[in-house]
Order: sequence, then C-alpha cells, then structure tokens
Amino acid sequence: MSVTDRKAKIGILGASGYTGAELVRLLIAHPHVRIALLTADRRAGKPMAEVFPQFAPYPLPVLTALDAVDWATLKLDLAFCALPHGTTQKVIEDLLARQPALKIVDLSADFRLTDPAAYARWYGHEHFAPELQQKAVYGLTEIYRNVIATAQLVANPGCYTSCAELALIPLLQAKAIDPGEIVIDAKSGVTGAGRGAREDMQFAEVSEGFHAYGVGHHRHMAELDQEFSLAAGRPVTATFTPHLVPMNRGILSTIYVRGLNASPPDLHAILLKSYANEPFVHVLPFGALPATRHVRGSNMTFIGVAADRVAGRAIIGSVLDNLTKGASGQAVQNMNVMLGYSETTGLEQVALFP
Amino acid sequence: MSVTDRKAKIGILGASGYTGAELVRLLIAHPHVRIALLTADRRAGKPMAEVFPQFAPYPLPVLTALDAVDWATLKLDLAFCALPHGTTQKVIEDLLARQPALKIVDLSADFRLTDPAAYARWYGHEHFAPELQQKAVYGLTEIYRNVIATAQLVANPGCYTSCAELALIPLLQAKAIDPGEIVIDAKSGVTGAGRGAREDMQFAEVSEGFHAYGVGHHRHMAELDQEFSLAAGRPVTATFTPHLVPMNRGILSTIYVRGLNASPPDLHAILLKSYANEPFVHVLPFGALPATRHVRGSNMTFIGVAADRVAGRAIIGSVLDNLTKGASGQAVQNMNVMLGYSETTGLEQVALFP
Amino acid sequence: MSVTDRKAKIGILGASGYTGAELVRLLIAHPHVRIALLTADRRAGKPMAEVFPQFAPYPLPVLTALDAVDWATLKLDLAFCALPHGTTQKVIEDLLARQPALKIVDLSADFRLTDPAAYARWYGHEHFAPELQQKAVYGLTEIYRNVIATAQLVANPGCYTSCAELALIPLLQAKAIDPGEIVIDAKSGVTGAGRGAREDMQFAEVSEGFHAYGVGHHRHMAELDQEFSLAAGRPVTATFTPHLVPMNRGILSTIYVRGLNASPPDLHAILLKSYANEPFVHVLPFGALPATRHVRGSNMTFIGVAADRVAGRAIIGSVLDNLTKGASGQAVQNMNVMLGYSETTGLEQVALFP
Amino acid sequence: MSVTDRKAKIGILGASGYTGAELVRLLIAHPHVRIALLTADRRAGKPMAEVFPQFAPYPLPVLTALDAVDWATLKLDLAFCALPHGTTQKVIEDLLARQPALKIVDLSADFRLTDPAAYARWYGHEHFAPELQQKAVYGLTEIYRNVIATAQLVANPGCYTSCAELALIPLLQAKAIDPGEIVIDAKSGVTGAGRGAREDMQFAEVSEGFHAYGVGHHRHMAELDQEFSLAAGRPVTATFTPHLVPMNRGILSTIYVRGLNASPPDLHAILLKSYANEPFVHVLPFGALPATRHVRGSNMTFIGVAADRVAGRAIIGSVLDNLTKGASGQAVQNMNVMLGYSETTGLEQVALFP
Repeated sequence: MSVTDRKAKIGILGASGYTGAELVRLLIAHPHVRIALLTADRRAGKPMAEVFPQFAPYPLPVLTALDAVDWATLKLDLAFCALPHGTTQKVIEDLLARQPALKIVDLSADFRLTDPAAYARWYGHEHFAPELQQKAVYGLTEIYRNVIATAQLVANPGCYTSCAELALIPLLQAKAIDPGEIVIDAKSGVTGAGRGAREDMQFAEVSEGFHAYGVGHHRHMAELDQEFSLAAGRPVTATFTPHLVPMNRGILSTIYVRGLNASPPDLHAILLKSYANEPFVHVLPFGALPATRHVRGSNMTFIGVAADRVAGRAIIGSVLDNLTKGASGQAVQNMNVMLGYSETTGLEQVALFP
Repeated sequence: MSVTDRKAKIGILGASGYTGAELVRLLIAHPHVRIALLTADRRAGKPMAEVFPQFAPYPLPVLTALDAVDWATLKLDLAFCALPHGTTQKVIEDLLARQPALKIVDLSADFRLTDPAAYARWYGHEHFAPELQQKAVYGLTEIYRNVIATAQLVANPGCYTSCAELALIPLLQAKAIDPGEIVIDAKSGVTGAGRGAREDMQFAEVSEGFHAYGVGHHRHMAELDQEFSLAAGRPVTATFTPHLVPMNRGILSTIYVRGLNASPPDLHAILLKSYANEPFVHVLPFGALPATRHVRGSNMTFIGVAADRVAGRAIIGSVLDNLTKGASGQAVQNMNVMLGYSETTGLEQVALFP
Repeated sequence: MSVTDRKAKIGILGASGYTGAELVRLLIAHPHVRIALLTADRRAGKPMAEVFPQFAPYPLPVLTALDAVDWATLKLDLAFCALPHGTTQKVIEDLLARQPALKIVDLSADFRLTDPAAYARWYGHEHFAPELQQKAVYGLTEIYRNVIATAQLVANPGCYTSCAELALIPLLQAKAIDPGEIVIDAKSGVTGAGRGAREDMQFAEVSEGFHAYGVGHHRHMAELDQEFSLAAGRPVTATFTPHLVPMNRGILSTIYVRGLNASPPDLHAILLKSYANEPFVHVLPFGALPATRHVRGSNMTFIGVAADRVAGRAIIGSVLDNLTKGASGQAVQNMNVMLGYSETTGLEQVALFP
Repeated sequence: MSVTDRKAKIGILGASGYTGAELVRLLIAHPHVRIALLTADRRAGKPMAEVFPQFAPYPLPVLTALDAVDWATLKLDLAFCALPHGTTQKVIEDLLARQPALKIVDLSADFRLTDPAAYARWYGHEHFAPELQQKAVYGLTEIYRNVIATAQLVANPGCYTSCAELALIPLLQAKAIDPGEIVIDAKSGVTGAGRGAREDMQFAEVSEGFHAYGVGHHRHMAELDQEFSLAAGRPVTATFTPHLVPMNRGILSTIYVRGLNASPPDLHAILLKSYANEPFVHVLPFGALPATRHVRGSNMTFIGVAADRVAGRAIIGSVLDNLTKGASGQAVQNMNVMLGYSETTGLEQVALFP
C-alpha cells in the first residue's frame, strides 16, 4: 500500500496541552494523515473546541481518557505522546504491549537519554522501561534522519537542546571550536513551561520583566551533554543558562565559542555547508544574528554567526519556535520520515510576523 | 485556459508594509498563483528578506519601484494594491491605462465608498478617479460574492468595518434590531496602524496600557454608514469607538444592540442561519463571546451573542485577525472568487494559539 | 495624642496577594504609619522578600498565620483586610470580638452591599455578619468622605465600580443623563484577578489577545446598581461588560450615555466642577479621553468627555490603576481619613510611564 | 545658606524624552528642589502635560526652546542634560560660558570617556569640548562618590554599563576574577532606545519576539573597557552582547566569569561586603539570581551570584531599571551628592511590581 492510498490514522496522547494543540494545528493541514484519537484525562468527554476554541471550525474526535481507548479497534498507524515526563515511559511500555507494531513519537524527556546511568542521575530514579530506552532513537531529524526512518520509537528532542544542538553539532563534529569553552545563554518564551496553572507563569508575573531560572541545574543539560559529547568525540560540559522572555513562542540561544584554528567566518562556512540542503535550517549571512519573531509558528531554525571583538571568539545566534521546530513541528517532521512521506509535508507554513 | 493549466501571475504593490507581508505569507502557500512582482519604492532594489527576514527561505522577486515596472512584459493576472490611502486612486487609474484588463484588489480605503459626496465629505477632497469609483465593488465576500466574481476592481473592506459588518448586516437585513440604537465598542491590535514609524506606536507607548482614539470621527464610520444603511434600507448612524490593545493582531467589537421583536436568542439564530455554510464565519453557541487569539493568523471570523441583563438588549462579540480576514486574507478570498478558484484555497491555515 | 506623636500600628491581613503587596508598597513610604503585622496563611513563617522580592531591601515583619496573631499584645490601630470574598465577613466579626475598637478597611466585596437581600441574591447565601454589614461604610472617599471619617469599618469599593462611579455619580446626581441608557464597556488589566494560579490567567492565555468575560452577570454590577440608584434617586440598571487587556495594571471604562437636557460639554462642565478640588480625580479638557498608562502606579483617576457623532450622546472615558485607586491606594486614602491624616499622605507618587 | 533654607532651582534640558520624563517624575517628589526649567525644542511652547499626560495634575513650567532661555535671570543651581549624544558637548560648553558656576549632570555619552583618543575612536570625530572632557567626573556614585561631591560636571553612566560595572568592579578590584574571561550577555527593555519614532521600535516589531543587536560594536563597550581596566589595573576587553526584551523598563546582565583563586561563594562574599552599606545595591543570597521586575521604577540594583556547573566558573546576574538607576535615578543620586543632600532623598520609591 502506498502512502497515497489512504490517510494514516494518527493519535495524540495528551491533546489538551500546548504541544498537543500544536500537533493538532499542524496535522489538520497535513494531506496524508487523519487525526483519529485525542486523549486528555482531565478533559475526557469534552470536544476539543472547549479546550482550544480555535479548533471549533474543524471536525475532530472528542477528547478521550487514555484508559478508555480501544486500541485493537482503533489500529493507529502512529501515536504522538505529549504526556508529562516520568509517566510517559510506563504509558508507552503499556501501549506497545497492546499494539506491538505501533510507531511512536514521544515529546517527553523520557527516552532522550540513552545512558541508563545518566537518566538515573538527572531524574532521580531508575528508568521504568530500560529496554525501550535502548531502542529509542533521538529525534533530531537533521542529524539522525537515517535511523529515524526505521525506528519504532523516536524521542523528540527538547526545545532548548534542538536550538543549541543544530548550531553546535556541526562545529563540534568538525572540531572547529573548543569543546571546553562553550557558553549558551538561552532565552525562551513561556509556552515551554506548558499549560498547567502555575503562579510563576501568570501574566502579571511574566510580563514587563526578565529573569534567569534553573541556573546550574536545568535538565536539558543532560541532553546537551549527550549530544555534544557524541559530536565532539569526547566529554563536553557546556555552560547553559535559561531565561524567561515575556513572549509566547520562541527560543534564542546566544552562544559564545572559541575557534580552534577556525575564524568566525570559518565557523559560518561550516554551518552554511552543513545545512545547504536542509529545508528547515537557514543560515543567515555572516555577521547577522536571528530574531525569534521570524520563525514564529514555522518549522524553521535560523542560525547566524558573528565575530566577537575579542579575538578568536565568535557569537552564534540560533532561533526556533519552541512549539514547532522545538516540539510538535519536529515531531511531525519525524513522523514524515517514519511513515515515508516527504519530510516537509504539512510543515511549509511561513512564519507569522508581525 | 483553465485555472489549473498554469499559475496565475500576481503582483503586490506596496509589499514592504504589514498587509503586503501578509499577502506574501498567504500567497507563498497558495497552489494556483505565483508572486511575480513586489513593489516598494523606498526599498526598491532590496530583497524581500531584508525587509521581512521571515521570507529568507523562499524565492521571491526583488523589490521594485512602481515606476520601474514593465507592465507590458510582466502581464500580471491580478494585482493587490497595498498602498496608502489617497495616492492609490491615481496609481490604479494609471495602472489600468497601461494594462486595461488587469484585475485589482485594492486594500486601501480609496474605493470603498460608492457615493462621491460621501467620499469628499470624509476625505476632504473630490475623488481623483470618479469613474473607477463607480465601477469598484465592495469586497466583503460573504455579502457581495456574486458581483465580486465578475468585478475588475474590488475594494477590500476596512478591518474594523468587516468585523462589525459581518455581525450586524444579517440582523439589519432581517430588521431584527433597532438601527438607531447601535453602539460598537471596538478594540484593535497595533498592526492596523501599519509599519511606518510613529511615536504613538512605539512599544513603550503601547504596552502596559489601553486607550481610545479617533473618538467621534474615525473614517471607518463612513463605510459602516454605507453598508449598514444599505442593509437596513434606511440611514443608519452607529456609535463607534476604536481602542488600541497592546497586541499585534486582532480586532474585537463589542456591539450593544436592542432587539426589534427579537430576543437575544432570536438574534443568535439569525446569525447562525446566515452563516451556516460560510467557511470563514463561525457563530459560537448562544451566550459565548469570542476571543481574538482564537482567530490569530487565520481567515476566520468568530461571532457570539449573549443576552444583556437589561431586558431587550443583546451583546454581540465579533473577532477577526485584522491582517488576515480584516485585510490580506479577505483580499486573497476575493482573488479566489475573481479568478475562479475555490474560495478557501490558500486560506485553510488554522489559527496560531498560543 | 496627636497623629504626629507616634506612628500608627498597621496590620495587613492577606499580604501575599497583589493588593497586599500594593498596600506594603504604599505604606513603606507613608510617614505616619508602621507596618506591624503581615498575615498570609499558606506562606506563614516566610519573610515577605521571599514572596515579593522587591521588598528585600526593607525591614518588614515576617508573614504570620492569622490564627497565630496575639491581638491583645499587638494593639493595632488599623487593619487592612485583603482576604478572599466570602470568608472575610467571618474573619472581621471575629477580629472585632477580640479587639472591639480596631478600625478596619476591608478590600473584599463582603461589606460593599448595604441591602441584605441584594447580598443574598448576588452571592447566593445570607450574609454571615448582618449587623456589621449595616455598620459598614462604602469607601469611595470622594463621595463618602464625611461618614468615612468616623467609621470603624470601611468597605473599600471594587476596582471596576470605582472607575465607573467616579465618572457617573455626579452626572446622575445632577440628573443630567438618562439613567435607563447607560452602557459601560470596561477593560481591565490582569491583576484584578489576583495572584492565585489560574489557567486562564497564564501569560500565554492572556498575551496577544483580547476577550470579554462575565457577560451579563459580573458581581460588580450589584455595587453599580446600589450606588447609581442612590445617586439617581431611582433604580438604575446599567449595561456592563468587562474585558481582559494583556497588561498588568489599569482599567479603562468607555461609557456611553444620553444627555437629559444636557449636551456633552454640559456633562463635562458638571464633572469639572465636581472634582475641581479633588486631589485624585483629574478631568481632561473636553474632547480628550484618557489612557490607563498615565495613571499607572498612582492614585489618580483621569476622566474625559467627548461628544458622540450621534446627537445627544456622549462618550465618557475613565481610567484608574486597579491596584492603586481601584484597591490599595483607595484603602490608604480611607485610612488617612479615618486616622485624621491629610488625605493625600503617602499617595503623592507620580504615575510610572513609560 | 543651608540646603533647607530654600529649594534648589533645577533645569532639565531635553524634557520630552523618556529620561527627561523620569527626571520630572523623581524631582516632583523631591523635597529640596524645584523644577524651574524644562526645555524641548520641537515641543517648545507646549505644556508638559501634552507631551506626557501623566503630569497633568502637577504645576510645571511650560516647555521652552533651549535658545530662548534667559540664563542670567533664571540662575539655576543645577541642570540635567538629557540631550542626544554628540550635540551635548557643544551645548554644555556654551551653557558654562553663560553661567560659569552652573552644576551639570549630563545623561548623554559625551563626557563618559576620559581618554580623547578613545572618544575619537568610538565616536568617529574629535571631542568638541576637550577641556571639559578632562574635567568631567564619571558618575557611578557608588564608586566615585567622593569626586562627584565636588565636581561641576558629572557624566552619568550608561544603563548597560552601570548594570555590569556594579557587578564586576569590586571583583576586578579584588583580582578575584580573570579579566580576560568575561562574557556579558545583556538584555534590555525598549526605553533604552529613547522616545523618537523608529520602525524597529514599533510595538509590532518588538512584541512576541527577542533578538540581539549591536553585536561586536556597541558603544557602551568603550565605557566598560575604561572602567574595567581602571578597576583591574590592566587592559580589559569583555565580550558584550546586548539584546532587546519586549518590556519597557529593565536591564538584566547575565555575566559569566572565571574565578582566580576564588570560588563562586568567594565572589558572592566580596560583593556582599562591598555593598553592605550601599542603599541602592542589594546582593541576593548566594545561588539566587535577580529579576528586572523587582527593581522596576526604583533606584535599586539587585545582584546575585550562582555557581556554574563548570568548575571554576560563576554566573552573576545584575538588574536595574534602565530609566531609574540606569539613567535618571542615578542622575538624581549624583545631584544629591553634588548639592549636599542625603544621597537617597527623593529616591526611596519602592519598585512597582506587579
């Protein structure tokens, strides 16, 4: 059966959060798939339009409790898991017991770390599904496209990590920067924190202000360590400080690096060449740094390189929309690869600016 | 020649403003057209990506000065005019002299008023192209679809007016509300003011605040008067107060009306029936009022009706994205009708929320 | 003992909310008082700087549980109650049982309605302290200054109501407007909803959008009815629709009225005369409407009157900062009157704009 | 004559900009001074309330053209210069020719650099008033209080520079950090760009987005170089990248440093000790980093120090309000020192949060 014969049946587990809604937004416009399942335990029984009124004009399944799904009848082709960290690993293990051939893109952090010891150290407990952990593939499509194509379980990367990794992996692979001298000063909009009510995410607590958080101990560091070390072929521990910007969407990472026999223009040339044929990574002209607003709502990453006035140092800017390329767009990109569609299908939306 | 034989050649006059950029965003994703011309006098010679970096990944014509266009060679199928009020009428007259069969959707206010006297009264001078003024068709597609289909020059409605007219025209036509007792309290995001630098539109002048403007003398009133009077079959002068909201996109009109032998549920029923088959107007369940964020970046209008606690009065809420359904999306909808495409082509984008 | 002999001892019950913090901000700079008590049950034992870091440089009492207060030893001169609606009435009754001469300014809605039947109708239960309800004085200082001076319990008005009442009471008293034809379209920043975590007040749910809420049944209507009816000498039921603006502070009420043998300039003249000597109400020149940003953080109300283009109708704009003149500033103003200080003491702060 | 005998006569040159308005806000509440002159060439003849409506309730001089001032009659005690960079040096030279004893606090960059060669290099021309340049004192009060006390011309520091210098000068003086390894990632609200209309400062260009600017060549670097080199006793060239935050007020500098025989807690201890008696610098507990919102509208700087997970590195956060401690509050602090008032007079306002 070819992909054009019928639409693939897709489920979204955890459809009442922001990444769930972003998946719905993208999949409604995707020509080869049909949303066949939306789960949301606390909102079970409600129409999606009650939780996200922007979907009122579209026919969508009613929200269902995860426990109430009849997997055998439903026969999904692929499920997106947009559930909380920690609980996801059990859900997926259970799901695969019921439907062993199901393909899954998991948007939680549960399967991103391949090393069980690293997982235990960063999350404070042994992994609940260690065998699955070994099978999962890290879903940064630009880097792992080939293994994603045949993977059953893809661990979609974190938003901060995608943003920094796309900028740095080619430079580390080329041994063009000093792996011991990386400072990532990252700034994110608020949707990265999810939809659940939190006092520190109230409008009045976020607007008209700016602050750092998670200084010295953010869990995305574990992912950075894993991927940077793989790319560099040696252990890498980068400095990483996340900040909260009073905006909904977008991450900008300002990255300070030191060239190794490579000038800032050399670094720019490496990135330009690495991404010459990538549809979702655009490298700006040398000296220009990107703005988050120019990728808002799109699946694009914009990367720029400029020379620091301190000799030997370069300043790299990398931006993406944390809900799109940083989460749900990336997940759809992975789905396209896993189901054999053109990688850009359903992801051609131009950024919404202003 | 059928529409599927080749892509129509489209020009955008005034591509460096917000409505121009919104046209580009929508047309890039439109399957039946190709952007063949982008003009911007002050930015002539520059790539569009320099003016709006979000378009860097897409191939687009370089910005051209209007005077430098070789119309004979270019042979556009349709041009969008996104030029300033007042100068547009001369530009279009000149344009049609050079290419008499060109179809045009004009996004300025120049051809919205059909009465020369009304134009002169509101704009302070005689119309410069009175013959064209008589030929122009008012481009609120839901109301004037049939004449738009065969029109050469369509005057795209104003953003405030579309928002209020879609809510009130069916009620006035049905004589279900008192035409002498209409209060429209309208609130708009900042992009309605365009991109040009203005002190009163600086971030620090707009954020963390709210105010009314143009009280008692906003030019959109002329359009409201024209269309409401037509719908009611008698002169209508509504109270209309615009306000500025610290947000980029969106208009919400809170409209206070008095039923004429019609209860608030009756008013709701009339709107529900009027728009039952309209793809871009969604009427909420009775009692629910809409939010601008649920139509952001989409071509949708959401309308809600609630009962006031004062007997006989209803409160109507109407929202749209001023750059999409309030300007460029509406313009593309008109283009689809004028060129014989399905009316929703290229306009299926789901709202971007959050 | 004169007020200058010693500083009055002040308590704030409910210091961990926004109105509590605003009281602290104002009282720190007040020359005649000393903050002797801050209560916050869930945060008891913590320093105020942990809950509101802006107070770190100032010496303040540690937060205490309400039950743990030793009232006899403390001997407050006056307490501000910034506790939730519904529970406040019991707390105050209990408090006065322990310290019968204590003066209280209550910022909740519990004592604003003087009619027990109205209270029961709007709040769904009989008042728990009906005797106190009869003694409480409505704390709109500009209108009730004389009775406030000798009151023991002052019910600080609601933010929406203060904004509309200051604009309309003089006009109703003068019988200059039709009491049956009042439409109040009100817009508020988010801090009116308090600090507690709510999904609908998250940054991403509020920013870049605008919507109405509580249509037809907002509890502030009860207060409006009471005060407007008193002013007009007949029952008044105004139309009132609140909206949420993506900003922290500020309310703007756009009020549509119909003159009774009074032109818009007549209405303006009445307001100008009424407030000629009021330090906290400023009437703009005729035709100008106010912006919330110009009263941000100050105790000022700005009121403007413009003519509608519909003959006989006027548009009135009224703005205040919902946390200052709409809550805590108003409360301090009442305290000044109750304790015999100059009414403006500690309230001279100029608005913070930009 | 003692300072309490009469109020000092103060002039503000350039009162129609944001730093001018902030000076007015602070001086209105200052007990020892009187605003006797407000200049604004383009707005000459207008009342201040027309340019900044928040001042409508206060008596203030009408705006005057600089050329129209009769200095001999006016006899100011002190003038604040809030004029554009480049033109200020001529204005001040001329001013001192007319009134030789006038004290001046200049808020432009014209007199911040003491080295004529550095000035020429960064600003592209020789200084127009080189003799005055040599007399001017750098106005970071915490560091230069003693010389400010007797200075006639004080060059108020830049907002970015004050923020970074207060955090780093004590550490450089103590030789506790490596002067060759300083990365300052700075984020500012929009008011730092002034009030003049600029396309890139329009609300729609700034909101819902984040970007870096001036990468590698921001003029504040010259000031940083001067002051850091002085503090370290050797040339220091720090990496410095400014970013624009969608907020009105506030700067946060995230500073990455490497200790020299000093652990992060050692660095914290040095700052704590340095600022133990400073009224306007508050050092947070070790491990806590500050937020801009907690100093909004106040003259405070909050500084925090945390350990990086990379051994030997520390992350320092420093925040101030760019219009207050970063400009006009700092200027008033300098005025207090120059005129012999208590340094905190008129600057006690608590931060406005939320």
